[in-house]
Amino acid sequence: MKIIHIFLFLFYLLSYTSHAVSTNDFCVADFTFPKTPSGYPCKSETNVTANDFASSSLVAANTKNIFNSGLTTAFVKDLPGLNGLDISALRIDFDINGTVPMHIHPDASELIIVAQGEIKAGFITPTKVYEKYLKVGDVFVFPTGLFHYQVNIGPTKAIVYAVFGSSNPSIQLLFGLLFKNNLPTPIIQKTTLLDASQIMKLKAQLGGSG
Amino acid sequence: MKIIHIFLFLFYLLSYTSHAVSTNDFCVADFTFPKTPSGYPCKSETNVTANDFASSSLVAANTKNIFNSGLTTAFVKDLPGLNGLDISALRIDFDINGTVPMHIHPDASELIIVAQGEIKAGFITPTKVYEKYLKVGDVFVFPTGLFHYQVNIGPTKAIVYAVFGSSNPSIQLLFGLLFKNNLPTPIIQKTTLLDASQIMKLKAQLGGSG
Amino acid sequence: MKIIHIFLFLFYLLSYTSHAVSTNDFCVADFTFPKTPSGYPCKSETNVTANDFASSSLVAANTKNIFNSGLTTAFVKDLPGLNGLDISALRIDFDINGTVPMHIHPDASELIIVAQGEIKAGFITPTKVYEKYLKVGDVFVFPTGLFHYQVNIGPTKAIVYAVFGSSNPSIQLLFGLLFKNNLPTPIIQKTTLLDASQIMKLKAQLGGSG
Amino acid sequence: MKIIHIFLFLFYLLSYTSHAVSTNDFCVADFTFPKTPSGYPCKSETNVTANDFASSSLVAANTKNIFNSGLTTAFVKDLPGLNGLDISALRIDFDINGTVPMHIHPDASELIIVAQGEIKAGFITPTKVYEKYLKVGDVFVFPTGLFHYQVNIGPTKAIVYAVFGSSNPSIQLLFGLLFKNNLPTPIIQKTTLLDASQIMKLKAQLGGSG
Amino acid sequence: MKIIHIFLFLFYLLSYTSHAVSTNDFCVADFTFPKTPSGYPCKSETNVTANDFASSSLVAANTKNIFNSGLTTAFVKDLPGLNGLDISALRIDFDINGTVPMHIHPDASELIIVAQGEIKAGFITPTKVYEKYLKVGDVFVFPTGLFHYQVNIGPTKAIVYAVFGSSNPSIQLLFGLLFKNNLPTPIIQKTTLLDASQIMKLKAQLGGSG
Amino acid sequence: MKIIHIFLFLFYLLSYTSHAVSTNDFCVADFTFPKTPSGYPCKSETNVTANDFASSSLVAANTKNIFNSGLTTAFVKDLPGLNGLDISALRIDFDINGTVPMHIHPDASELIIVAQGEIKAGFITPTKVYEKYLKVGDVFVFPTGLFHYQVNIGPTKAIVYAVFGSSNPSIQLLFGLLFKNNLPTPIIQKTTLLDASQIMKLKAQLGGSG
Repeated sequence: MKIIHIFLFLFYLLSYTSHAVSTNDFCVADFTFPKTPSGYPCKSETNVTANDFASSSLVAANTKNIFNSGLTTAFVKDLPGLNGLDISALRIDFDINGTVPMHIHPDASELIIVAQGEIKAGFITPTKVYEKYLKVGDVFVFPTGLFHYQVNIGPTKAIVYAVFGSSNPSIQLLFGLLFKNNLPTPIIQKTTLLDASQIMKLKAQLGGSG
Repeated sequence: MKIIHIFLFLFYLLSYTSHAVSTNDFCVADFTFPKTPSGYPCKSETNVTANDFASSSLVAANTKNIFNSGLTTAFVKDLPGLNGLDISALRIDFDINGTVPMHIHPDASELIIVAQGEIKAGFITPTKVYEKYLKVGDVFVFPTGLFHYQVNIGPTKAIVYAVFGSSNPSIQLLFGLLFKNNLPTPIIQKTTLLDASQIMKLKAQLGGSG
Repeated sequence: MKIIHIFLFLFYLLSYTSHAVSTNDFCVADFTFPKTPSGYPCKSETNVTANDFASSSLVAANTKNIFNSGLTTAFVKDLPGLNGLDISALRIDFDINGTVPMHIHPDASELIIVAQGEIKAGFITPTKVYEKYLKVGDVFVFPTGLFHYQVNIGPTKAIVYAVFGSSNPSIQLLFGLLFKNNLPTPIIQKTTLLDASQIMKLKAQLGGSG
Repeated sequence: MKIIHIFLFLFYLLSYTSHAVSTNDFCVADFTFPKTPSGYPCKSETNVTANDFASSSLVAANTKNIFNSGLTTAFVKDLPGLNGLDISALRIDFDINGTVPMHIHPDASELIIVAQGEIKAGFITPTKVYEKYLKVGDVFVFPTGLFHYQVNIGPTKAIVYAVFGSSNPSIQLLFGLLFKNNLPTPIIQKTTLLDASQIMKLKAQLGGSG
Repeated sequence: MKIIHIFLFLFYLLSYTSHAVSTNDFCVADFTFPKTPSGYPCKSETNVTANDFASSSLVAANTKNIFNSGLTTAFVKDLPGLNGLDISALRIDFDINGTVPMHIHPDASELIIVAQGEIKAGFITPTKVYEKYLKVGDVFVFPTGLFHYQVNIGPTKAIVYAVFGSSNPSIQLLFGLLFKNNLPTPIIQKTTLLDASQIMKLKAQLGGSG
Repeated sequence: MKIIHIFLFLFYLLSYTSHAVSTNDFCVADFTFPKTPSGYPCKSETNVTANDFASSSLVAANTKNIFNSGLTTAFVKDLPGLNGLDISALRIDFDINGTVPMHIHPDASELIIVAQGEIKAGFITPTKVYEKYLKVGDVFVFPTGLFHYQVNIGPTKAIVYAVFGSSNPSIQLLFGLLFKNNLPTPIIQKTTLLDASQIMKLKAQLGGSG
């Protein structure tokens, strides 16, 4: 094939593939614009690099807290390439006896993979508890919108990777919602059946008012 | 127009509109088949009547319970024509001082309309309470997946209609999930920070075990 | 528990729950930005109050019109907290003999609850009418995308609450579409089989041209 | 490469690719099971052939009817491989002066391509008509859920291909819904403002009762 | 009916239909704003005309290229009224022996209608080829996300209309992805099993580097 | 509180919470029924146990194959509780120099977490390669529908967990689609530009025919 043929060939291709330069391959978040119900507006493709799709944010978390556990996230804020997609991840570190407190993700399924240690994981319905002992490599799924928890039941620290069917899952932590904001004690009492003394004790500990 | 023309005319129309006899206008639930993730299989159109789309199930509920409130539903089980659609309703009756306990619908927005009485309605985030006083005719919306509650704060009984962006909304009642099943007390304690004595007291009252 | 312990405790909690300050609990409409196919961009969370989720807009409507009925809405424009959700409501007031004219919501299921009076409600397919007599408290559903109507058949005024599986349902009123815009009479004639005299009479009454 | 290597090679590949034998590539309709809200159950993959994805159903339609037009469809019933997908097509044949009557597809966008002749196509909102003259090769889109029509305005027969963002679009033809079923004349009169005489005339012509 | 009655009548109607002036009938793309995951923000309705919904862009394409085929599109960029809808189209022109190269649309079903000539169209799974001979008027569907191709097998030029269940389908052309960018030869070799010499030959022809 | 009060109390609760016994918390796959476009029909809730939500299937895979890598899955077939949800996982084991061949998931986003070793991961568009070096704990996302690959570039074996925004992601492996089925060599040649000799060589190695 002569040089002239190659040029001709390329010219031909050009007319064919100009329509194929897809502008809808991804939508990396541009955080300078306000969010919409479907996610953030897209950053110009010319400013997108491989770094927008990678993160080293899943590191060992500080576990010096009341639950002896901590988490680090790879959500859309940490990894802007997740915008418009339906996946994200977090890492949970458990000290011995550590716990992931009771919570719910209304908008996302969650799947966990045990990376280290031994875990008891469960979710609850009004009539039943679905709980399993999990060792390294085991997988468990928490269906969307059900309360769930994890407990480190092994003799060592534990690490769990949790992944979600959403780029920005909502996390509704029970203890925080009830005892850390200014929801008045009488309202909590009436709507949860907890005793006022219990509520006030936890509000005092956790910084809630009302 | 002569009779013969009318016949001809009808014959012409027939060929035109035979494609318009739509079989996808609705999908009334056939409960004899198992549910799928998108709802129940559809009943044969020849067995569908107007009754499949109507219900008188929203009547005054029994309110003689610990929350002095009760509810009746018009969900897909009550109204099979809702199958495959994204709407449903319930009626809440409040005695004086009655309460709708703290709960969450992970899969549906909720909008309430006060039909009688005076209500305080609110939902919570970890840092804030969004609460309003509502009188007859007022509307309030609980965004999908946030904990919420209602309290009758007027001097009379109250009635509220609640509607959902789902034909079969999931209702996750906090007190029931924590204290009515067999979730072990130590797990509840560790994952909610509640005291064991509080948990055991409510389990005893509500019929929970573990 | 000593003061020092409480401080330590709060410090521990802080590291745990900082990830839980959810920014995706809701998306209240910011009407200063243009709409997108998924709704309006979200108002900054710091400017959101409980008022964004409440409305007193469902009041008695003026019924002095040709249909002897009127409506008031609680759609996203009235209730910006509905943005990104899939629910909304309206109130219909019927004078004696009042009617909701034939119309269609292509993008939303509709469920009605009779709050006062006696109503006949129905929807139509090419071969069949699905119609029911409804009294106070009764519920009826109009499947998405089917033509429907309501008629006050009782001896008194009537009130109906209608709710939708969309925050901003489209309302396609037949009489308005055919006779209030500038669609030329010959086009209407050919595409609906109506007589030119009928079309011109209604265009004159309703303000249509063409 | 010796024979023994090739066998080893194939054995290696087998372990790798056994997971890749996808069973979710398509879901051809099995019409022996009832439909669900998401479509028909899937036929066993072993019974699927290329014929399930092809159709010769888009032929010239009979146009000897009141609108001087006719249509043939390639919907899921004609082309079972469309099941679970969101696309379908139909062909419209227009005699001289032929018309596609006023109608609406609540669940699908429609795009038309003029294959022969000259067409006027339009859709309507309460305040405006969006209408265009179209010649061979021209494209027009009717947004989901808006009333639309087409008229052959050229000196010859015309052919149009219409495609839909649904495998089974609903077609709501105005004249059929109003005048071909048993919807009572007084109801039509009250809900559309049409005169009783007009309604009765068209019911008589079109075979409606009531 | 007297003049005064007509005025009264119009006044009455006005109060009724003011709510019906729908602002959600369509969402024509405003390309001056950045795209979001759900599409472009909507142009103000006052600037929208019928031209936003029409296109003459589907013309005969240049086929003087290596595949002896060419395409012209009616995607959202060509037809801004498609924004927020789920439909679009393109036209393919084939010279004798022309080919649509192997490619995939991850986000859209595709349906083709043969407008001229004779085509062989097929899609592939790991174990099977689903291929059909198609003549003028025949329809074929490529399920979402499967590799497919078309070949002109007739004695003349051919024309095909292809339509998609998306307003902006992604087109992933195999030859372009492998041989036109800077993906290093050793990576291609390892991940596709192709020989380095084959890869380098095609990179040289197609303008790829690495 | 006396015994009689507790009974009364429980009776009261019963009437309240009977509506809360949700039957839509999950939809575990019943594989004895055919799949639908939305997934498998749901197993009766009385037969569901915690085992339906857990799996130990993510074990070390056989890597003795041409790519020196292997995978094990936790998809809906392995973990029936995933049915109707939008999440799943797999584990990839890489020998030294191992590779995940070029492939695409048309229906799912993919996020990877490196559990052991050093990986180069990338995806491609027609004009650009987005590639990153990843070490233990690093995260990378492959946007839905883009071709991607992974290569073990470290001195040891490597392990990667990959998770998907679908319970049953489709895996389209390039080498298998082109060279393992019976797609005729001339078609491959014309639609990919590969040389016949290259195609025949790989068909021979991989077991393809045609």
